[in-house]
Amino acid sequence: MASKNYYDVTEWPVGNPFEDIGEVINSIIADIKSRQTDTDVNKGGKPGAVIYIPPGDYHLGSQVVIDISYLKIMGSGHGFTSSSIRFNTSENEWADLHELWPGGSRILVDIPLEVNDEEYKGAAFYVERSGNPRISSVEFSDFCIDGLHFIEDGSGETNPENTYTNGKTGIYVASACDSFRITGMGFVYLEHGITIYHADALTIHDNFIAECGNCIELRGWGQASKITDNLIGAGFKGYSIYAQNFGGLLITANNIFPRGASSIYFDGVTRSSITNNRLHSFYPGMVVFRENCSENMVSSNHFLRDHEPWTPFLGIDNGLDDLYGLLYISGNNNSVIANHFSEVINTQNIKPVGATPVIIRIVSGNGNYISNNHVVATEVHAKISDSCFSAQVDALLTTEASEPLTVITVLVEKESLQNTILDSGGDAQVVMDKTVNAFRATPTPGA
Amino acid sequence: MASKNYYDVTEWPVGNPFEDIGEVINSIIADIKSRQTDTDVNKGGKPGAVIYIPPGDYHLGSQVVIDISYLKIMGSGHGFTSSSIRFNTSENEWADLHELWPGGSRILVDIPLEVNDEEYKGAAFYVERSGNPRISSVEFSDFCIDGLHFIEDGSGETNPENTYTNGKTGIYVASACDSFRITGMGFVYLEHGITIYHADALTIHDNFIAECGNCIELRGWGQASKITDNLIGAGFKGYSIYAQNFGGLLITANNIFPRGASSIYFDGVTRSSITNNRLHSFYPGMVVFRENCSENMVSSNHFLRDHEPWTPFLGIDNGLDDLYGLLYISGNNNSVIANHFSEVINTQNIKPVGATPVIIRIVSGNGNYISNNHVVATEVHAKISDSCFSAQVDALLTTEASEPLTVITVLVEKESLQNTILDSGGDAQVVMDKTVNAFRATPTPGA
Amino acid sequence: MASKNYYDVTEWPVGNPFEDIGEVINSIIADIKSRQTDTDVNKGGKPGAVIYIPPGDYHLGSQVVIDISYLKIMGSGHGFTSSSIRFNTSENEWADLHELWPGGSRILVDIPLEVNDEEYKGAAFYVERSGNPRISSVEFSDFCIDGLHFIEDGSGETNPENTYTNGKTGIYVASACDSFRITGMGFVYLEHGITIYHADALTIHDNFIAECGNCIELRGWGQASKITDNLIGAGFKGYSIYAQNFGGLLITANNIFPRGASSIYFDGVTRSSITNNRLHSFYPGMVVFRENCSENMVSSNHFLRDHEPWTPFLGIDNGLDDLYGLLYISGNNNSVIANHFSEVINTQNIKPVGATPVIIRIVSGNGNYISNNHVVATEVHAKISDSCFSAQVDALLTTEASEPLTVITVLVEKESLQNTILDSGGDAQVVMDKTVNAFRATPTPGA
Repeated sequence: MASKNYYDVTEWPVGNPFEDIGEVINSIIADIKSRQTDTDVNKGGKPGAVIYIPPGDYHLGSQVVIDISYLKIMGSGHGFTSSSIRFNTSENEWADLHELWPGGSRILVDIPLEVNDEEYKGAAFYVERSGNPRISSVEFSDFCIDGLHFIEDGSGETNPENTYTNGKTGIYVASACDSFRITGMGFVYLEHGITIYHADALTIHDNFIAECGNCIELRGWGQASKITDNLIGAGFKGYSIYAQNFGGLLITANNIFPRGASSIYFDGVTRSSITNNRLHSFYPGMVVFRENCSENMVSSNHFLRDHEPWTPFLGIDNGLDDLYGLLYISGNNNSVIANHFSEVINTQNIKPVGATPVIIRIVSGNGNYISNNHVVATEVHAKISDSCFSAQVDALLTTEASEPLTVITVLVEKESLQNTILDSGGDAQVVMDKTVNAFRATPTPGA
Repeated sequence: MASKNYYDVTEWPVGNPFEDIGEVINSIIADIKSRQTDTDVNKGGKPGAVIYIPPGDYHLGSQVVIDISYLKIMGSGHGFTSSSIRFNTSENEWADLHELWPGGSRILVDIPLEVNDEEYKGAAFYVERSGNPRISSVEFSDFCIDGLHFIEDGSGETNPENTYTNGKTGIYVASACDSFRITGMGFVYLEHGITIYHADALTIHDNFIAECGNCIELRGWGQASKITDNLIGAGFKGYSIYAQNFGGLLITANNIFPRGASSIYFDGVTRSSITNNRLHSFYPGMVVFRENCSENMVSSNHFLRDHEPWTPFLGIDNGLDDLYGLLYISGNNNSVIANHFSEVINTQNIKPVGATPVIIRIVSGNGNYISNNHVVATEVHAKISDSCFSAQVDALLTTEASEPLTVITVLVEKESLQNTILDSGGDAQVVMDKTVNAFRATPTPGA
Repeated sequence: MASKNYYDVTEWPVGNPFEDIGEVINSIIADIKSRQTDTDVNKGGKPGAVIYIPPGDYHLGSQVVIDISYLKIMGSGHGFTSSSIRFNTSENEWADLHELWPGGSRILVDIPLEVNDEEYKGAAFYVERSGNPRISSVEFSDFCIDGLHFIEDGSGETNPENTYTNGKTGIYVASACDSFRITGMGFVYLEHGITIYHADALTIHDNFIAECGNCIELRGWGQASKITDNLIGAGFKGYSIYAQNFGGLLITANNIFPRGASSIYFDGVTRSSITNNRLHSFYPGMVVFRENCSENMVSSNHFLRDHEPWTPFLGIDNGLDDLYGLLYISGNNNSVIANHFSEVINTQNIKPVGATPVIIRIVSGNGNYISNNHVVATEVHAKISDSCFSAQVDALLTTEASEPLTVITVLVEKESLQNTILDSGGDAQVVMDKTVNAFRATPTPGA
């Protein structure tokens, strides 16, 4: 009578999970499907199964293809460690390292890829099902997906391990999905961590997704989902979080660290929330709203933009200059209330030379409400270090040896009307046509 | 020496879990209690046990009765899928559906109920213990409780599966409890998802609770608890979250979707927080404070009220008209700061006809502080669809083909004095006696 | 082929986990290390392992020493119950109690300690590794660490179980660590719950940490971490959360209850967030920023300070008087926006006698932005009870039989310049030099 719906990849008779866990999991899924034979409408549940991956190193040569609901794949360890630090350490020192690779319940993505393969072919886990209902309640929990290496991509980057390019994706959901959960996972050295099309009621919660080209991409359209309580940090050319044509997305309680071309990028997203996150970046364009993002809420976030402190990435950025804005808005009726912005830069690095950096920029759109944001801008003499960790800590804690920096706290472009800017900067710091937008300056001492 | 405190329901010799998991779990609980014989004060722990439910369909005919602390019941899959969509699909199409029912580690609640049975008799899991200490640290994790069907209730609803009535409850805690945890669960098609009396230090975190008559009800009184990071959506006549005489409740990071007569209903609740949630409803009365709710905090939430887009529920609502307010407050000294409100309705549907809808309404009470709330109100021509999902996505993303709608952003009734309304609407949008309440209008462009 | 990386402490051949689980886990760790022999750079992963602790009472006499990455230690039950209530109940009543001790997967910390032992010697779990890389991805999940008893400490406290002193620590991390996770745990009756030096990308999420001298201490320095969604409450002389020289810490969605000398104490912390928490204390100094804490964000929190209602702790406090401030700030450029403060005290208990209590106090520092905070202060006649739970609930719900209390909502000391105080109190409630700081009074009715 014991359950047949609990599988351990190390105990399954088909394939060898250490050599190709993809073959093993696909065989298990086939077994689950072969047993889903009950066709009685009033009894016939297809409850799915759980597949357990104990801690260990499991190569994946065959893509896992998931087309059944209620499948849970779980391990016992997110296993993140920084591969970037290792790959920027001299090989002479490797013998002295305690360990060289991420760990936990770890999938080593070894899918053989051809040049010009379609993106989905590089996915370790590929979810797709047509017809009705949408595939539901697939869960990924507590294991590690490691893309292993980045590769030369013609960009001129001298260390191929720093390109954030390898054609690999951790989890790719191609068709409309409902009530999926991704929790407690680790993702590292993938060009795309999580890519999901057409999500409804999705949970991405309490994961560690870093050193990936892009971390989370919600594409197509979707609704009523949450990205909460994650540690996230993409590479310099990708998104930490990207969402497209989404309604009702809640992004909260995340600690999003560098680099990331953008910490959060919204493309046609409406009625969604970015609240209560800690956002840290080395470039402008930290949060970007493009293509008429409207009626969104940006509140209680801490934005920090400072400088790249680590030698291997010096001189690399996302290509945006300091006039772009840390928060860039194209759209109507958004709310930006009660955020803190810290901008810490070396004036010698400001682009274009001599420019006054912009913090919040409304590029187009009406009816945005920008209120009670506190901008702190300081000039520092950047410290650089060969040690990634100590450099970052050092930079984060440096608040003393600095001088105030002049910035534009809010810039409203000419195309924008009927916006309201309150208590988010003094008269000189808020640049806009004050006859077509509403304004109240933050009071100044003694005034 | 192997542990005797780990039980798998599919391996227990008493009963058949697929036919009546209630009998099996009650037998396991009896076994745990029979082994708790240590009476030495300095040694005598009663550590409890874990009961594991692998993925599968488990009928429950006998109510589980829990009266021991430190019992954890866990599965491997929350298993939610929409039963509502299926039950509003023609039976002719069912043969083409991939699956008909929710799944995961799924309890099918088959408790035989008589008319006029007391509510608790319909509970799948019933927790009750008198004496001291209060029962502690019972945990429910990662399984699904499915009420299966709703029934005719005399309301005239033509499809009995749309009544949200069946007398069934998922988890019912009747006596004072401490440090309970409900995490990673799925609840579907229950008249009451979770009902808990007299909770202290309760955690309801990261669950999926939807298509239930009511989702979470904290009754009697309670303190110092949290409802966080859940996906929640009740039926049209119940509460997504209800709390009574509670102090120190933290409701945050939830994505609460329609329908729900109220998203959150507070009855005599004090010194509690509703912060940082995404709230979506089809009716007024989204958040209601009744019976002198005082010193509560409502901050950084995104409220969206739009229209019912799905054919089966057209014409059904919660009975409240547009003068009721999306946020209804009876009580003193509450804070409503930095929220975004989107109201999107077809003026033809406004009730009473020709009324000016109200967003925030202070019905009675002094000393409330309403500050920096941004209200966006638009008129649309409602789209209706036979497809629940695409209709909702469509509605969510529609921000363009709309016109501004005149609303009262804040209405303070005559019984209310000494309230403070700041930057939450223009002079004409904030309706109150401005000689007995404090007011500062949101500045207007060019003013 | 079955996994060798899953260990159950009750099945391991060395030692007896019920007598000394420390010996058993150390033996397992030695086994894991003995099997990490792969030295091939391109293959040689050291994936770690999971050690499972089923529910049960496990004495720990030997400290567990962890020096490998990717080790997960997990149980099936956080097992918290109040030992404080039991130890303040007459022994005559103990025979009538359902259970006397915490439970779940419970570690009973029995480490033999000498007077003047170094602090780390009292740790149940001690993590330390020198060299590179930093130890990564150690995880603690779903078990209970119980310090069992407090002891006489010469403070004059008559009941030694109320001293919060015993030299014991739950988890002590001595060296720099990366991507650690502590989730779903219970900590009780330890002098220090969690002590971590030099944390990077740490997650402390969804734990129950109460009745400990101190709950969470992040020492030395650290960055980019999160303390989220926990239930926390330290003893009267310690910290619920303490952080030192930290950058980018996100403290959110926690419900922090009494007592705690401070709910949150920052020592030289910068660019961090305290947002969206529910904070409850019986003393001033709820949140303290010392040693130039700068550019931090305090937003959307609910602060409640009321009085000690429980007989055993009457007359005990943290030694601070009512001029200290509920929120005490020394530092520059911090943001305090959109918080609710409830102060509920008996004027007879105000210290010094006749003083006007202070809510937010800026002791030193420039450029702080204090905006849209709502302060509600009331005088009550304190109720005292022998029952901890009912006393607290009673106090929490009492908002009616009270009178307004005069307080200073914001006090800016003379050393502080260029601060901005907006809508956080009337002219008489905000005390500062208004020629060197900016001010806008909350409007008053009829004004």
